[in-house]
Amino acid sequence: MKKNKNFAGIFPYLVTPLDDKGHLKEDVLADLVDHLIGKGVHGLTPLGSTGEGPYLDWETKKRTVQVVVEAAAGRVPVIGGVNNMTTHGAVHEAAETEKLGVDGIRAVLPSYYSVDHDQIVTHFRSVARAVSCSVTLYTNPQFANWDFTVDTLRRIIEEPNVHYLKDASGNIGKLMSIVTVLGDRLKIFSATAFVPLFVFMMGGVGWMAGPACLIPEQSIALYEMARKKEWEEALEYQKKLWPLNVAFQRYSLAACVKAGLEMQGFSVGSPLAPQKQLSPEGRKDLHRILRNAGAI
Amino acid sequence: MKKNKNFAGIFPYLVTPLDDKGHLKEDVLADLVDHLIGKGVHGLTPLGSTGEGPYLDWETKKRTVQVVVEAAAGRVPVIGGVNNMTTHGAVHEAAETEKLGVDGIRAVLPSYYSVDHDQIVTHFRSVARAVSCSVTLYTNPQFANWDFTVDTLRRIIEEPNVHYLKDASGNIGKLMSIVTVLGDRLKIFSATAFVPLFVFMMGGVGWMAGPACLIPEQSIALYEMARKKEWEEALEYQKKLWPLNVAFQRYSLAACVKAGLEMQGFSVGSPLAPQKQLSPEGRKDLHRILRNAGAI
Amino acid sequence: MKKNKNFAGIFPYLVTPLDDKGHLKEDVLADLVDHLIGKGVHGLTPLGSTGEGPYLDWETKKRTVQVVVEAAAGRVPVIGGVNNMTTHGAVHEAAETEKLGVDGIRAVLPSYYSVDHDQIVTHFRSVARAVSCSVTLYTNPQFANWDFTVDTLRRIIEEPNVHYLKDASGNIGKLMSIVTVLGDRLKIFSATAFVPLFVFMMGGVGWMAGPACLIPEQSIALYEMARKKEWEEALEYQKKLWPLNVAFQRYSLAACVKAGLEMQGFSVGSPLAPQKQLSPEGRKDLHRILRNAGAI
Amino acid sequence: MKKNKNFAGIFPYLVTPLDDKGHLKEDVLADLVDHLIGKGVHGLTPLGSTGEGPYLDWETKKRTVQVVVEAAAGRVPVIGGVNNMTTHGAVHEAAETEKLGVDGIRAVLPSYYSVDHDQIVTHFRSVARAVSCSVTLYTNPQFANWDFTVDTLRRIIEEPNVHYLKDASGNIGKLMSIVTVLGDRLKIFSATAFVPLFVFMMGGVGWMAGPACLIPEQSIALYEMARKKEWEEALEYQKKLWPLNVAFQRYSLAACVKAGLEMQGFSVGSPLAPQKQLSPEGRKDLHRILRNAGAI
Repeated sequence: MKKNKNFAGIFPYLVTPLDDKGHLKEDVLADLVDHLIGKGVHGLTPLGSTGEGPYLDWETKKRTVQVVVEAAAGRVPVIGGVNNMTTHGAVHEAAETEKLGVDGIRAVLPSYYSVDHDQIVTHFRSVARAVSCSVTLYTNPQFANWDFTVDTLRRIIEEPNVHYLKDASGNIGKLMSIVTVLGDRLKIFSATAFVPLFVFMMGGVGWMAGPACLIPEQSIALYEMARKKEWEEALEYQKKLWPLNVAFQRYSLAACVKAGLEMQGFSVGSPLAPQKQLSPEGRKDLHRILRNAGAI
Repeated sequence: MKKNKNFAGIFPYLVTPLDDKGHLKEDVLADLVDHLIGKGVHGLTPLGSTGEGPYLDWETKKRTVQVVVEAAAGRVPVIGGVNNMTTHGAVHEAAETEKLGVDGIRAVLPSYYSVDHDQIVTHFRSVARAVSCSVTLYTNPQFANWDFTVDTLRRIIEEPNVHYLKDASGNIGKLMSIVTVLGDRLKIFSATAFVPLFVFMMGGVGWMAGPACLIPEQSIALYEMARKKEWEEALEYQKKLWPLNVAFQRYSLAACVKAGLEMQGFSVGSPLAPQKQLSPEGRKDLHRILRNAGAI
Repeated sequence: MKKNKNFAGIFPYLVTPLDDKGHLKEDVLADLVDHLIGKGVHGLTPLGSTGEGPYLDWETKKRTVQVVVEAAAGRVPVIGGVNNMTTHGAVHEAAETEKLGVDGIRAVLPSYYSVDHDQIVTHFRSVARAVSCSVTLYTNPQFANWDFTVDTLRRIIEEPNVHYLKDASGNIGKLMSIVTVLGDRLKIFSATAFVPLFVFMMGGVGWMAGPACLIPEQSIALYEMARKKEWEEALEYQKKLWPLNVAFQRYSLAACVKAGLEMQGFSVGSPLAPQKQLSPEGRKDLHRILRNAGAI
Repeated sequence: MKKNKNFAGIFPYLVTPLDDKGHLKEDVLADLVDHLIGKGVHGLTPLGSTGEGPYLDWETKKRTVQVVVEAAAGRVPVIGGVNNMTTHGAVHEAAETEKLGVDGIRAVLPSYYSVDHDQIVTHFRSVARAVSCSVTLYTNPQFANWDFTVDTLRRIIEEPNVHYLKDASGNIGKLMSIVTVLGDRLKIFSATAFVPLFVFMMGGVGWMAGPACLIPEQSIALYEMARKKEWEEALEYQKKLWPLNVAFQRYSLAACVKAGLEMQGFSVGSPLAPQKQLSPEGRKDLHRILRNAGAI
C-alpha cells in the first residue's frame, strides 16, 4: 500500500471504544472509522489525548491502530499515536506502530520527572529516527510539565521526517512565532484550544480534533471555506461551531466526545477511570450544542 | 471639550519618561504625544503596564495624565490608566482621573492577596460607578494572580459604562468565547500577546499596544488593511511586524519600548528599578527589528 | 532612646485598625499595642501582610508606625514594614521609617513585572543601605512572583545590617538549607505557614505572626517551652495551638485577625476591599478555635 | 511467610538497576537488598520515584518486586510500588503485587488528565479494596497535577487497610494539619523534601527515602536518636546529613542515587532516558557530600 505523504485537512482524534472491562470494542471502532471517512474526513488519528492513549497498555494500543488501519483500507491516511514516558519505550512503540501500516506517527511525551530542553530534543529526535514515516510532534502543556519552544522545535526538525506540529497550548502568539521563524519546514495542525480558522489563515494545514468526531461535515466545511479564502463567511461559521470547542475545553476530553458519539448512536462506552463520565448537566449542555450545530 | 465616545484603532501605551530621580520629563512626554498624533494614532493610553503605572505615585500619575491631555488637545481620545490595589484607592484615582479631562479610563487590579470572582466583580463595578466616562477593563494574567472569565465579565458589564476589554492573556480561545457570548456589548482591544490581526478579524476594534509607540505608522497600516478586509495582504504585513511583538514579550515591556524610543531620538530615560534596562544584546536585537520594520 | 539590637521571641504582626473611610483608628491601635505589651510580647511589627501594608498609602503607613512607636514607648522593639514596588520608593520609605524611631525595618517586595535574582539582590541591598538600623527580609511566595534562594540571600547579607529573615513559604527543607548554609549570619523568624516550634528547634529566634495578636500569651508560652528545650511538652502545646495557624492560612489574613480582635473587644474594623470580611461560617469557626485556645 | 504489619523506621526507596537495554540487573538488585538489610534498614520499598516505577513496564516491575521479596527473605518487610495512570490498571497491579509476597503496597497516581477530589478518592479506595495487605498512600505534587488534602485523606482512610502516608510536598504545615486532624489513624513516613527529624518528632513512624540507599547507617542513627528522644543530638546529626537531602532535591532522583551507588560499588547503571545521568559537576558534588557523611 502506497503511503500518503502530505497530510492536510480534518483529522478527527478517534476515541477508543472500550467495554466495562477496558477491552477494545473493535466493531464500534471500525464503524466509527467507516462513518467518518464516509463524511469526508481527510485522515484519522487514533490514540491521542481524546483516544486515551496515555491510559492504554501496548496490546490495546496496537490492536486499536490495526483496526483503524484495516477499516480505513488506504482511503485516508492514518497517523498512529505514540504515548510513552520513556525514550526506549517510545522508540519501540514508534517502530512497532509503523509496522502496523500507518502513514505517520504522532509523538507525545507524557511527563513525570521534570525534563529540560536537551532531554526533550533528544527524546523526540530518537523517536523520529526510529521510523521512516512522517512524524507529527504533539504537546498539551495542560497535561505535561514541559512545552516546546521555537528553539527546541528548530533542533528537533533537524530530523528530516519531522513534518508536523500539533500544539495545544492555545497561545496564538507562540504559534505565530513558530510560523514566522520555521516557515513551511514545520507544518501546523490546529488544536481545539485554538480558533482553527485563524490557524488555517496563518498557513496551518489542518485541524486534529476530538470534536471532529462529532461534527465531521461541519469541520470540513470550515476547512473548505478557509481553503477558498472565504474568510468572512468562514468566520461566521467558526463562531457558530465555537460552543463545541468550549464544551470540549470545559469537560474532560474523552468524556465529552464519547458522550456525544453515544448520542449519535455509536456505542463507544465510558472513559477509563479515574476519568469521569460526563455529568447529567454536561450531557444536556452537549446535547444542545450538537443539536444547534446540526450534528444530532 | 466634547468627549470622544467610540474608541477604535491604534492606541499606543505611552511610556512614562522619567529622569534619574524618577521625576516626570514633561517635555519629552508632550513631544512623544505630538509625534504619535502626527503619525496618525487614534488614541493614547498613558499609565498602562508599558507606562509603569503600577510603579508610580499618584502625583506622578496625575501629572502624566495632565500632560497627555494637554498635549493631545482633543485631537485624539485619551484613556487614563487606573492602577491601585485597593478598591477605595482605585475609586478615588478613577474619579480624579476623569476630572483631568480624559475621555475614558482603563482599570487594572494589581494583586497581592488572592481575590475570588465576587471580589473582582465588586472591585471593577465600584470603579465603573465612580466615573461617568467609558471604562476599559484590563488584565495581564502574567502580572496578576487572577484573570477575567466570561462570567465575571458578564457581571461587570451590568455597569453600562464598561465598554471595552483589553485582555493580555494571549489565549485566543478565551477571546473567541468572550466575543461569541458577549458580542458587541464588550468591545475588544488586542494586546501584543495576541496576533492583532486575528483580533481585528474577530471583530476587535483596535490594538492597545506598547510597540505602537515605536511603529505607529505600521500599526495603523495593519489596522487599515483589516478595516478594508484585505486579509491576505494584512497577514503578510502582520508577519513582517511580528518580531516586534516577540521582542516585546521577551524583554521587559518598559525597558524594550523605552530603549526603542531612545533609538528614535526621544529621551525617555530608563525604566524604574527593580526593572532592568535592556541588555546590550537586547538593544542590538531591538535595533535590528526596528530597522527591518522601517522604524529607524 | 537606645535602640534594641537583638530581636527574639514573639513579634505580633499588628493589624491596621481602619474606619469605614480607610482612616487609621489611632486610639484602637495604641490600645492594641498596650494590650500586647502587657501580655508580654517581645516586639511589634506593624505594616506586614496582616497589617495590609501593601494596600496603604504612605501617609497612613507613616502615621501607623508613629502611633506604634509612641505607644510602645521603648518597652519593646518596633520593626516597621516597608512595602513598595519600586526600589527608589522602598529606599525612601525605609529611610523615612527609620526616622520615625523604629528599631528595625522589615522589607518586602510586592511584585508586578517579573524580576530575576540580580534584580532582587540589588533591590534589597539598596533598601538595606538606606538605613543604619537592622533589616529583616521578608517574602511570601503566595503573594509574589519571586522567592528568595540560599544564593540570593547569601548575596544580600553582604550588607552588614541585614540580620533577619522571615520566610513564609512553608517549605521546611528550604529553611533547613538556609540554616545549614548561612548559619547564624541570618537569623530566622518563623512564619505561620511553618510549624513555629520546629523553626525554634532549628535555631529560629522567634515567630512573627498575625495569630499572635489573638493569642499572645499562648504564643509566648510556646516560645518559652522551646527556649527551655522542653520539646515534648512544647509539641503537645503546639498541636493544641495549630488550628489557629490553619484558620489563618485558610481565611484571608487581615480578615481573620481583625475578626478575632473584634471578638476580643478591639474595634479594629474591616479589611480594605477588595479583601472580604470573614464569612459568618469563618467567624463561627474562628470563635470556636479562639475559645478552645483560651483566647476568648 | 507471616506478614509484617507494623512498618516503622528507615525504608530505602530502592533504585531499579538496569542495563543499557533497560533490562533488570537482578543480581545487582539482590546484592543491594542484602547490603541494605545488613546495614540494618527496617524495610524496603521498590518501585518508588527513585526506583523509576512510573517508567517501567509491568514485566520489569513484577520481576523487580520478586527479586526484592526473594532477597529480603522475610528479614524485613517489603512494600511494593504501584504506579499506574488508570484505576483498573492500578487495581490489577496492586492485586498482582500482593500475590508476589509483599507485606504492603505503596500506591501513587501519575497524572495526565486533570482529576478532582472525588476522582482521587475513588481511585485510591479502589486500589485499597483490591488488596488485603496494608496500603501506603503516596504523592509528590512536583510530579503530579493533584495533591492530597486533609479531607480527601479522611475519605480514603474509610478503607481500613490504608495505614500510611508518604507525602513529598515539603509543606510542613500541611503535615501538621494531617497529624492533628487524623491522628494515629494515618501514620506518616517522611519524604526527603521534609526534614525527617521534624517528621519523627511530630509522630512520624519513619523515613521512606532515596538517600537511605546511600547512607543507611546514618539514616538509622538519626531515627534511633529520635526514638530515644535525644532531640538536640539528633538535630546536630540531621544538619550534618542535610546536604544529601539537598543534592537529592537538586539533581534528578534516580540519577543522584544511582550515581552514588555506583561510587559505592554497586553496578546499578543509568536512569532511563529521557532522564539524564548526573553531570560531572553533580557527581563531584555528590562524591564530596557522601565522603563528608562517611558514606564512601
